[in-house]
Amino acid sequence: MDTAEVITQFAKMLENLDRWLETATAFAEKKKFPPDVFAQARLAPDQYELIRQVQSACDAAKYAAAYLSGQKAPSHPDTEKTVDELRARLRTCVQYLRGVKPSEYAGADDRRVAPPWLAGKWFRGADYLAQVAVPNFYFHVATAYAILRHNGVELGKMDYIGSLPTHDA
Amino acid sequence: MDTAEVITQFAKMLENLDRWLETATAFAEKKKFPPDVFAQARLAPDQYELIRQVQSACDAAKYAAAYLSGQKAPSHPDTEKTVDELRARLRTCVQYLRGVKPSEYAGADDRRVAPPWLAGKWFRGADYLAQVAVPNFYFHVATAYAILRHNGVELGKMDYIGSLPTHDA
Repeated sequence: MDTAEVITQFAKMLENLDRWLETATAFAEKKKFPPDVFAQARLAPDQYELIRQVQSACDAAKYAAAYLSGQKAPSHPDTEKTVDELRARLRTCVQYLRGVKPSEYAGADDRRVAPPWLAGKWFRGADYLAQVAVPNFYFHVATAYAILRHNGVELGKMDYIGSLPTHDA
Repeated sequence: MDTAEVITQFAKMLENLDRWLETATAFAEKKKFPPDVFAQARLAPDQYELIRQVQSACDAAKYAAAYLSGQKAPSHPDTEKTVDELRARLRTCVQYLRGVKPSEYAGADDRRVAPPWLAGKWFRGADYLAQVAVPNFYFHVATAYAILRHNGVELGKMDYIGSLPTHDA
């Protein structure tokens, strides 16, 4: 499983998340409440609401792609207020992720990754990906899913996982 | 990021989860309610309760280690009823994960992984790890965390992530 495969998987999960938001919007319309009620929903009073979960999932993926390919991450300001705007943010992020070529991740495992919040310290690329970017990304994706499920949206595990990369026997 | 690093990271996350359960137990004692109330807690009526989230996280990690090293997975029956029993299950799983040598994952990316639930079809090892095992593992770990947070346990993002593998500048 190389870095490019992990980033491609992030893009796939963000596309899955886009579909959950589409399902949530249809659920709201059926139940006759504004879909943007979901935008402010959260599981604990001091935990991020759906908007910030989606923004944080996008950023975890974006920064992993940028840091590990040696690029400057594009700016995606956190201005979203509605579910439709979150879906647009997801598409913008996926477009960026899919635009980085696998060859740009050459040497990623041994890159020094020094995010500004680390105040001068650094991670080895492979450690950053496995122990920071991946768990953080899935934290926000799974929490977004949990917020929707907690609020009655009909989603199941296969909506979470998405397509299965099977081969026939 | 190779297969052994991913499995080592699974073990780290299960050890983090063990600490969240310790924190939850202390919270219950302070608030004077039985800690095993958490064992049955869930975020939606048709979603797994904490017990099955923890069991499922363990199994996602265990099967990934077994399938990708060409071993038969050890049997860990789903008999847990209490938070203490869940913590013992976590330790059993971590011990198994840490017992597989990195060299046993040689060729893992190209192994054919054919879980029984796939009815004869198979995954390429790297696809299985990136697109099935990792998202599934983090789904259950993050949902277990969310169940505890939703029920008032004082946990934060750094409890989720655990130790940071930093190097000094």
